[in-house]
Amino acid sequence: MTFKITKKSGKARTGILKTKTGNYETPFFMPVATKGAPKYIEASEIKELKGYAMISNAFLLYLKPGLEVIKKNKGIQKFMNWDGCSFTDSGGFQVLSLNKFKDKFSDDGLIFKSPYDGSLHKLNPKTVMKIEEEIGSDVAMCIDQMPLYEHSKDEVKIATQRTAKWAKECLKFHTDKKQLLFGICQGGTFHDLRRESAEFFSKLNFDGYGIGGLAVGEPKEKMMEMVKLTTKILPENKPRYLMGVGSPKEIIECVELGVDIFDSVWPTRIARHGKVMTKNKSYNITKTEFRFDLTPLEKNCKCKVCKNYTKSYIHHLYRVKEPLAMKLLSYHNLYFIQNLMKEIRTAIKNGKFQELKKKYKNI
Amino acid sequence: MTFKITKKSGKARTGILKTKTGNYETPFFMPVATKGAPKYIEASEIKELKGYAMISNAFLLYLKPGLEVIKKNKGIQKFMNWDGCSFTDSGGFQVLSLNKFKDKFSDDGLIFKSPYDGSLHKLNPKTVMKIEEEIGSDVAMCIDQMPLYEHSKDEVKIATQRTAKWAKECLKFHTDKKQLLFGICQGGTFHDLRRESAEFFSKLNFDGYGIGGLAVGEPKEKMMEMVKLTTKILPENKPRYLMGVGSPKEIIECVELGVDIFDSVWPTRIARHGKVMTKNKSYNITKTEFRFDLTPLEKNCKCKVCKNYTKSYIHHLYRVKEPLAMKLLSYHNLYFIQNLMKEIRTAIKNGKFQELKKKYKNI
Repeated sequence: MTFKITKKSGKARTGILKTKTGNYETPFFMPVATKGAPKYIEASEIKELKGYAMISNAFLLYLKPGLEVIKKNKGIQKFMNWDGCSFTDSGGFQVLSLNKFKDKFSDDGLIFKSPYDGSLHKLNPKTVMKIEEEIGSDVAMCIDQMPLYEHSKDEVKIATQRTAKWAKECLKFHTDKKQLLFGICQGGTFHDLRRESAEFFSKLNFDGYGIGGLAVGEPKEKMMEMVKLTTKILPENKPRYLMGVGSPKEIIECVELGVDIFDSVWPTRIARHGKVMTKNKSYNITKTEFRFDLTPLEKNCKCKVCKNYTKSYIHHLYRVKEPLAMKLLSYHNLYFIQNLMKEIRTAIKNGKFQELKKKYKNI
Repeated sequence: MTFKITKKSGKARTGILKTKTGNYETPFFMPVATKGAPKYIEASEIKELKGYAMISNAFLLYLKPGLEVIKKNKGIQKFMNWDGCSFTDSGGFQVLSLNKFKDKFSDDGLIFKSPYDGSLHKLNPKTVMKIEEEIGSDVAMCIDQMPLYEHSKDEVKIATQRTAKWAKECLKFHTDKKQLLFGICQGGTFHDLRRESAEFFSKLNFDGYGIGGLAVGEPKEKMMEMVKLTTKILPENKPRYLMGVGSPKEIIECVELGVDIFDSVWPTRIARHGKVMTKNKSYNITKTEFRFDLTPLEKNCKCKVCKNYTKSYIHHLYRVKEPLAMKLLSYHNLYFIQNLMKEIRTAIKNGKFQELKKKYKNI
């Protein structure tokens, strides 16, 4: 058994995800270490702020440093000196965002253009499974074709069916029994396609399920509808991972629908734009009003940045473009989100999830 | 008494510099926090690697965040959350490197063009002393005019005489008795001008002496000649601070001539170009030969970067432009130099300075 639900509060639940490196309590949030490191932050600092899982991109690691390097380092965890849980996404999302050419997807697989040298790489379920096994993550994600919100229903249908076909092949080609394998449901924002995809995946024996293709520009209500629909169908006793989400508000609302795992570049990306996450909406540290402000980024926050520095100082560092500003803001935002996850877990265990929702209502 | 020599080994000496914030053992090296932070590194990390002094730039801090902000934060140390020793340089060097217009220096002071908005600021001994007092550093440096190596003897003479004139005015205008004030000898690479400058400054009652205008492109032998000449003349019982130096080799050789204090952007700047400092010459981590290298940046180094990461990992991070690469390399290089300073102090105290020189002969 790789997943065990330990407590429920409505549809929200806490659980234990068991992987080859340890037991990790859900719901959890994964900082993104796309190329093998979170931006500006050390793995030891992720631990410091009580994070215990990170996600990297298999395609990009396959290109650089290359699989031989990761194998020589005895896998991604040792390479990064990270003793927590490690997920790898196949990288379909990067194909979408980095590759502008047509015909990049076909039933045979996908063509991926290296962002480093423009070289073309053909990837299919067989090669992707091999790549993720060699990277050695705790959890491999299937290769998928992720449609965007602007795509037509016909396009979404093709992508969803192709993702389904590939999923079956991934199951066949995935041989490392110590590594977990998660399927990824698609279906865009079309109820029937989402339902079909979730039903299809539910019948396959994956260790867990990604909910993919959301948070790609659709209205929030659409996203929530799709999460609701999908979580209703997916097997109760398997972990659900909402990919690329997100903001604290979305996380709380999706935990309420029974989602267990999240990842997003959101906290660190907005940090690099000067945004500070707090219990009462985020704000921008670059604003002139903070020039003389001797309070920490967030009142009562226990992170090392809030314990050590004033808004005034971080405002200054950001304004004069000191790289340390990026680090301090990223650290605080990641602490904020990890602390939120901890509060979510505690609230579920104590049957106080609605109180938590109220506490964070202004977020 | 603000400086006490505790041990001598030839001309090399250990001592205690007493400032308003504490007693600091010399010889020491100051990481550069030009705008209030070392690049990529937190003040707490400077402590972690046993650094206990940093230097900032008074002109740049005066422009941003501005004196009112620093005063509101109760001085530069509290602003940076730095409980070590803090020096401020007046910033003549930045005037030289950032300002390309002629007539920027006159006997009345200097005209400084803001790198932020191009606005012009007139600074003279009176304003500079006020700025440094308000910033509240432990040690203020006098305003100086620093000539470059390519300048003619006449130009260097004018700059040296002007620096001397300003120094007397600084003594007059400096009123904060808790803040130490260091004069800065100039004289370029001309024996007679250097001698005159050192003799002039020796007669003034400064708390210590900067040796300025070196490491600006002159051959190393010239620099060493000038340091030798200057340290012979400067009062024995006052601290000597060789500004902008430097490399480990130069530091060792200048300690041998009786220099007590150093600062340089060298360790962090070369780090950002991928260079790793070690006991056996520096090397570049970007080289392909390190792709599979599972050893730390430096064998037997006790810094947290060498304890936690392989060359292979840092090579990869640098190659894919992860900002964490800059941080890890900067941290190691600063550790290297702080550790060197510690070994230098121990060697002097144990009468083993020559052994230390031999140990580092390949540097």
